[in-house]
Amino acid sequence: MIEELIAAVEPVSADHAALARERHDQLAKPPGSLGQLEDLAVQLAAISRKCPPPALSSPALVVAAADHGVHAQGISDWPQAVTSLMVSTVASGGAAVNAIARSIGADVTVLDVGTVGETTAGGVVDARVRSGTRDITAEPAMTIGECAEAITAGARVATELVVRGADLLATGDLGIGNTTASSALIAAFAGEPAATVTGRGANMTDERVPVKVKAIETALARHGEERDPLRTLASLGGLEHAALVGVMLAGAAGRVPVVLDGVIADAAALAAVRICPAISGYLIAGHHSAEPGARVALAAIGSTALVDLGMRLGEGTGALLAVPIIQAAARVLGEMATLADVLDPPRLEPPG
Amino acid sequence: MIEELIAAVEPVSADHAALARERHDQLAKPPGSLGQLEDLAVQLAAISRKCPPPALSSPALVVAAADHGVHAQGISDWPQAVTSLMVSTVASGGAAVNAIARSIGADVTVLDVGTVGETTAGGVVDARVRSGTRDITAEPAMTIGECAEAITAGARVATELVVRGADLLATGDLGIGNTTASSALIAAFAGEPAATVTGRGANMTDERVPVKVKAIETALARHGEERDPLRTLASLGGLEHAALVGVMLAGAAGRVPVVLDGVIADAAALAAVRICPAISGYLIAGHHSAEPGARVALAAIGSTALVDLGMRLGEGTGALLAVPIIQAAARVLGEMATLADVLDPPRLEPPG
Repeated sequence: MIEELIAAVEPVSADHAALARERHDQLAKPPGSLGQLEDLAVQLAAISRKCPPPALSSPALVVAAADHGVHAQGISDWPQAVTSLMVSTVASGGAAVNAIARSIGADVTVLDVGTVGETTAGGVVDARVRSGTRDITAEPAMTIGECAEAITAGARVATELVVRGADLLATGDLGIGNTTASSALIAAFAGEPAATVTGRGANMTDERVPVKVKAIETALARHGEERDPLRTLASLGGLEHAALVGVMLAGAAGRVPVVLDGVIADAAALAAVRICPAISGYLIAGHHSAEPGARVALAAIGSTALVDLGMRLGEGTGALLAVPIIQAAARVLGEMATLADVLDPPRLEPPG
Repeated sequence: MIEELIAAVEPVSADHAALARERHDQLAKPPGSLGQLEDLAVQLAAISRKCPPPALSSPALVVAAADHGVHAQGISDWPQAVTSLMVSTVASGGAAVNAIARSIGADVTVLDVGTVGETTAGGVVDARVRSGTRDITAEPAMTIGECAEAITAGARVATELVVRGADLLATGDLGIGNTTASSALIAAFAGEPAATVTGRGANMTDERVPVKVKAIETALARHGEERDPLRTLASLGGLEHAALVGVMLAGAAGRVPVVLDGVIADAAALAAVRICPAISGYLIAGHHSAEPGARVALAAIGSTALVDLGMRLGEGTGALLAVPIIQAAARVLGEMATLADVLDPPRLEPPG
């Protein structure tokens, strides 16, 4: 199943990227004056194999939720029960991400791939693989089978959204302790020391960061020099990371752009690119994360974030705020007059 | 008339800012985790005197257009006729800003306060004060009367938009050579040397920047040590700067946020704040401009830009791309569940 997903991802089209670049230089503006908006339009053409790319009118966010065994190491100030509470809050429309989604017109799907608590809320896609991952300081977080199951769950939700008309996917996450798993993944994939890629997450004081670093160092030492990316994801990551890898694979297979949120999505993206290098052309980094690992992860996949509003909440809030910019980029390339039009506007009637 | 406009601007409400800050800390998220979105919501509450602030559903952009006598000094690679061409292009919906406006759902008004060419396009508000400003290296760009007329024209358009329901105003500009006038204004108001606040504009090569710097130095020497901000605006600015000052004054008087585009709007904002200090609480810097003067102007008015997409086109493109972020900020404060709601959700039925 994972192999099929990987095989379904074709590299983005360099031909359409070149066409888009050429078209941008003919538009009624100084070449390059739209900055990153031009790069985005080029990427959207390459993804869609259309120049100009289609307008993106149906963005959909997948919020993947799960808990983490490493929580036992004291890596978070919050109890794990908060994950389930937040799953319910997003499902009932009361979270920050829901307000932002309504504001920009995005659909929200909550996917539970492994929370510890019981989610009683309706509207949650229940695909719980297990009740949180195992403690990465002691053993692999997931078996390869569990990891594959979570990837498949994410891919299934994303495929359904694309089939139902979603033309852009955004990634979100819920999971107390998931910045620790993210830093572990980034350290392993990028070959950086734990201390370089670990920050204070959403709510910790700087003094407690060493607790996270120590847990990650222990996990990395336990994991060793493994070179198979799927095995690394299963060993150090979270079920929500795996689900987001599935979302990215299915989005790329469906030829839609996938917008990354913060450090959790960035870590999942790094895993996804190692598992399936062709996926990188489909990924757009939405929000710059204050977590030091985010910059390392994005550099490793050759991406930079579109916006930096100092947010550190997750849920997909940062990804969604980048969506109107991406939508505008598509519209600009599709709808702007060319310099030739402006200098010699088409006449409605023959002269004379 | 200008005095009436200035008198109509009341400072934003510190009480409502405090209420918004308090409410944000009660929402279901770690305090401060929404970064600049929280600051924006606080500002919107202060502007609207409502907590939560109303959702912003009707953004309107005013694109002020004019030409510049200093063009004779060779400060631009483009002929002045391009200003009129771009006025027509925006009026007919074919410019970058139109595509972006359609994408985010903003209304666009083009206001000609002094282009040199004849604008034949329909849909342009014709309030031409004169055929371009005078050459600032030789004499004041405008008389005080002309400057006041352009301010009034901008204010009239903005007031009409607010009366018709606009709940957010964005500023745009068209005017070949207007980065030179912007740098001159910023240098004069911020007391910085011309070389510090002058860049290559939308299309110039770095080698031609000294031509701009020299023209601005000549203009500053001619202008001298004048201390009246309206006189400085008239002496060194453009008719579109004056019109944008009018838009800002009327927006603030109407208690709606005014979103700044790039360096032209930033220069106008600096003039507006010096003319009417109470206006600063209504201004939101949309896009970071690559022009060195922009940072100086924003620092002088105590603002930082929301997005930086490397754009250098003007028209209001950068202001519009910040609008969905501002809209989201309002929705988040208005619609999110509180932590109390999440921990003890309201029951639909009595327990039984």
